[in-house]
Parts: sequence; structure tokens; C-alpha cells
Amino acid sequence: MARTIKKNAFYAQSGGVTSVINASACGVLETARKHKSKIGKVYAGLNGIIGALTENLIDTSKMTAKEIAALRYTPAGAFGSCRYKLTTLDVNRAEYERIIEVFKAHDIGYFFYNGGGDSQDTAYKVSLLSQEMGYPLTCVGVPKTIDNDLPFTDCCPGFGSVAKYVAVSLKEAELDVASMAKSSTKVFIMEVMGRHAGWIAAAAGLAAGRAKKTPYVILFPEIAFDQAKFLKRVDECVKQLGYCIICVSEGVHDENGKFLADTGLKDAFGHSQLGGVAPVIASMVKENLGYNITGLSPITYSVRPDILRPKLMWIKLMRSAKQP
Amino acid sequence: MARTIKKNAFYAQSGGVTSVINASACGVLETARKHKSKIGKVYAGLNGIIGALTENLIDTSKMTAKEIAALRYTPAGAFGSCRYKLTTLDVNRAEYERIIEVFKAHDIGYFFYNGGGDSQDTAYKVSLLSQEMGYPLTCVGVPKTIDNDLPFTDCCPGFGSVAKYVAVSLKEAELDVASMAKSSTKVFIMEVMGRHAGWIAAAAGLAAGRAKKTPYVILFPEIAFDQAKFLKRVDECVKQLGYCIICVSEGVHDENGKFLADTGLKDAFGHSQLGGVAPVIASMVKENLGYNITGLSPITYSVRPDILRPKLMWIKLMRSAKQP
Repeated sequence: MARTIKKNAFYAQSGGVTSVINASACGVLETARKHKSKIGKVYAGLNGIIGALTENLIDTSKMTAKEIAALRYTPAGAFGSCRYKLTTLDVNRAEYERIIEVFKAHDIGYFFYNGGGDSQDTAYKVSLLSQEMGYPLTCVGVPKTIDNDLPFTDCCPGFGSVAKYVAVSLKEAELDVASMAKSSTKVFIMEVMGRHAGWIAAAAGLAAGRAKKTPYVILFPEIAFDQAKFLKRVDECVKQLGYCIICVSEGVHDENGKFLADTGLKDAFGHSQLGGVAPVIASMVKENLGYNITGLSPITYSVRPDILRPKLMWIKLMRSAKQP
Repeated sequence: MARTIKKNAFYAQSGGVTSVINASACGVLETARKHKSKIGKVYAGLNGIIGALTENLIDTSKMTAKEIAALRYTPAGAFGSCRYKLTTLDVNRAEYERIIEVFKAHDIGYFFYNGGGDSQDTAYKVSLLSQEMGYPLTCVGVPKTIDNDLPFTDCCPGFGSVAKYVAVSLKEAELDVASMAKSSTKVFIMEVMGRHAGWIAAAAGLAAGRAKKTPYVILFPEIAFDQAKFLKRVDECVKQLGYCIICVSEGVHDENGKFLADTGLKDAFGHSQLGGVAPVIASMVKENLGYNITGLSPITYSVRPDILRPKLMWIKLMRSAKQP
């Protein structure tokens, strides 16, 4: 059987680099070294799949075990990542063929593609075409997203660190807001990623804790936005607890599926470009509940490392100054 | 002499809470305890100066030494802070008199006001009026700003942590951008606080390091913005080094003093409200250098904990997709 013959492997990073993408690389490289009877050299693509297309392969067999272990704590994308989408086989078959030819030239029998949904799809297409071209490749998708929305993964590498980050950030923000709410910011809004998956927004629940009444309001992309209900809840929070902490997913939409933050533009992948949903929510709160925006600009891009150690986009709202 | 009679003290926190404002509180309380022959109880104002106006005083003599020491690591404002500006003596003399009367009632002879420029000014006014009213107070401004723009302080408590934060954030952002620049973000923009003082922006220099050629461009409020020069430098960075990291102070203005980010609105203190200068810079780079804005929304409020672990407002720009 062809599969038992020793072959080289190719590993590539794709898309936004997570905090742990290099830890996944480490896992692939260390594991490959444990199976030397089946896997020869592991090549990493310089700048992801572009490295395969341009035949820029990094020979990781030259890395020491210590260097590979250090990948666990290496920031960014150690081999370079890319935003480069292979289209369908029909549209750009030549590009897929090019990849397979490069693999053939370097005796590569295993393709590890470290990325999100699109990358998993690419790995699948390469696998199909490789069979068709009589050079069957074992294609393995190595999951990577912060959104935690990949099928068949429970906690996707990349999500855990983001969840922790969101929860810690919100808790810090809450403490700051709580200590100022008497005369300043009463509503804090943090927008988080997650166009269709609310896992990241849900992480705000870790900050909210187990108290029956918490000042937290979380807006999920999975739940159609109900303005009246939302405003009622925010107002109750401020009146009962003194302030309100809102975590809003970028993908929040109305019952017709229209994103609250839709700008009408499309990105390179054909996805709708979303403007900030936080300012939309901020204006809504201001206009309907009579909160004034003050202190900093209504939509501040400024870093406020003092007030928000986590330093997220934030918007401060405040009632008209009340004399004590 | 009145000053040698043992008097109580009043301590209040004011304005945005820095990472170290409670460490300053700790310093005041611990030092006061060392001078028991001169200082009796130290009262802290609940929510800053509002606590004096409403006679909400926290008796810190009930705190244990351990609790006071723990202030060093306590987040937010331990006693509550406020954004509440006392106006001039002419306009609101009654409010100043009220403070002095509350101080009299609690036998307070020392007033420690922990805040920025406005708070130092308030402390001075209280001191003047107290003399006039025949109840002389020793008023001590305890410096606190992130901007590092208080006179007579070299490094103001609050600045150091921000400087470190900005430098670390930018370095992390740079590493991420560098690993993606081949096919994605080529220009990264971070906007930082500092309306008139460029200390925070200058902290970006810590990330830039000592290399002769760095991809960093820092825009200061002290230097009139020169669009042609700026664009030339950004273009050179991208062409020579592959990407450019811009740190822009919110207070950047043209040679006539007009803020690039001026929205025409005023905040509660009468200061100009600034919109984001980062999007202004982003549009400028896009329109003049032909970079496309892609991936995320042009002005993204989204948290991108994967790409930017520090999670600052960021804007990604990219050239039109180039096929490899």
C-alpha cells in the first residue's frame, strides 16, 4: 500500500494568527518526529499556502528539538501565515494542480493545513484532486479559529485564550466602571468577534459570575435582536445596580437576518463587511434611555490604558451630570 | 501654631482610575500612620470629592495594615472616583465652602487630592479659600495622570504602566502584522491618548527599538502634521520593510492647531470632543497610497484577540490582492 511508504509532510498556517497557532505547529512537528518510519521531513510553507504555490518550503528537520518546543511560546505565526483563498476547483484548478505538483516534487504525502473553515475546505479539495491526479495525499486539517465554530471540534485551539481574554477584560472594565459610575460612565459596551457564532460573546458570562442579578447583558448572533427587550434590560441594570456592562457580538442581527452593523460592503472573501455594532448600540442606548455621551469621544478609538487595562474598544455613556 | 495640633486628613481619588491610583492611596495611608502625632484619622471620600460634598467619608483607621498594603494590587478606584469638576470660586463658592465646612466638622486639617491637572487646581482653590475662611488647610495634590503632563513631575504615577502597555502592545501587533504582511495587513494604526502631550505616543519608541530602519511611524501632538511627509514615510516603510506600524496621538493637529479628529463637539469639561484620528489616518493612507481596506471593517470596533493580543483599536489595510 502506498500509504505505508515513508513520505515527507507539508505544514502551513492560514488566516489570522491565534495565540496558540504555533503550539499547533509544535504538535505537528513533534508528533511527526515520533513517526520517522512513516514521515520523513516536515516542510513548513513560508507564509502559509503561498509557500507551496511559490515553492518556498522551510525544512523543519533543521530545527532542533529545543527550537520546536519553543514554538509553544512563540508569538504571531512562526512560519508566516496568509490570507489567500483558493477558489473552487472549477474556477482555479491550475492553482490546486500547482500545489500537488510542488508536493510531488518534494515527495510530500501528508498535508497539514492549520486554519479555519475555509482552510479545512481547501484541504478537502486538495485531497480530492490528489486522488484524481493519481498522487493521493493524506490531508489533515489542523483546527484554528477564535470563534470556536468549526464542526467536530469541542473547544477549538484559539478559542480558549480569547474566552479568557474577554472574561478578564470585562471584569477589569466592570471594576473600573463600578468605581466611577456615581458621576461618570454608567454603560460600558464591548464588541467582540463572532459573526455567526456567539461563543466569544458567551465568554462574557465567565465575568458575570453566578450572582442572580448581574450588570451584564450579552447579545448573541444566534438570537434575533429585540430592541425593546434590550433597552429595558439595560435601564433596569443601571437603575438597580448603578451601571451596565454590554458584550455584543459583531454578528448581532435583527429578525430578518440584517446585521445591525452592516455597511453594505463586501470583503475579499465576499463576506459582508461589518462596521462597528458597538456605536450602533451606543446610539440606541443614548437616544432611547437619555444617557449622554461624555468625557471621551462618543466612539472612542483612543487607548485608555488607565481606565481599561484590557484596552478594548469602549464607549462611555453618562447621564447628564447630576449634582450630588 | 495651628499646624502642630493633631488633625485628621481627607483623601480623595479623582478622574479616570489608573493602574496605580490605589498604590498612591496606599502611600498616603501608610505614611499618615507613621506620623500619628500630627495626623489622626484619614478619611477617604466615597466617590472622590463627591464624598466630601455629601459627607460620605470612609474611616480608613478601621482598615488593617494588611488591607492597606493590599491597595497596591487593588484594581480600579478602591474608594470610588468621580468625574466632577468644581468650577471657579466666583461661580460656585458655595460648593467650596461646603467642602471646608465638612472638613471642619470632621476636624480635617490635611486634604490629599489624587488626580490630574484639574484636581491639583481644585486643591489649590480649596487651600486659598480655607485661609480666607480662617480654617487653614494643608492641601496636597497627589499626582495621577496617564499623560505624564503634570508640571513638576518627571514620571507621573499612571504613565509608566501605560508606556509599558503601549510598547508591548505595539510589539505584539508588529509581530502579528509581520507574519501576515505578505498577503494581508501591511499597515497597522494604533491611536493612543494624549491630547497635548506626546509621552504616550513616544512610548511606541520602546517597541521600535534601536535599529536604524524601523517600520514605526509616531505622530505627536507637539509636531504639526505634515501629510506629504507622513505618506512618504509610510510608503517607504511598506516598500522597504514590508509593513508599517503607526502610533498616532489623539491630539495630532495641523499647523493651524486644528485637530485631525475634531468632531466640533465639546465634552462636559468644555474640551473639544475628538472622534478617532486613526480612521482619518487610515482613509488618508488608503486614498493616497492605494492601499485597500479589507478583511474586517475599515474601522473595526471588533475585538481581535487572536491577531492583537493587546486588543487595541486597529485598522487593517492591504494592497489589492496580489497573486503570488
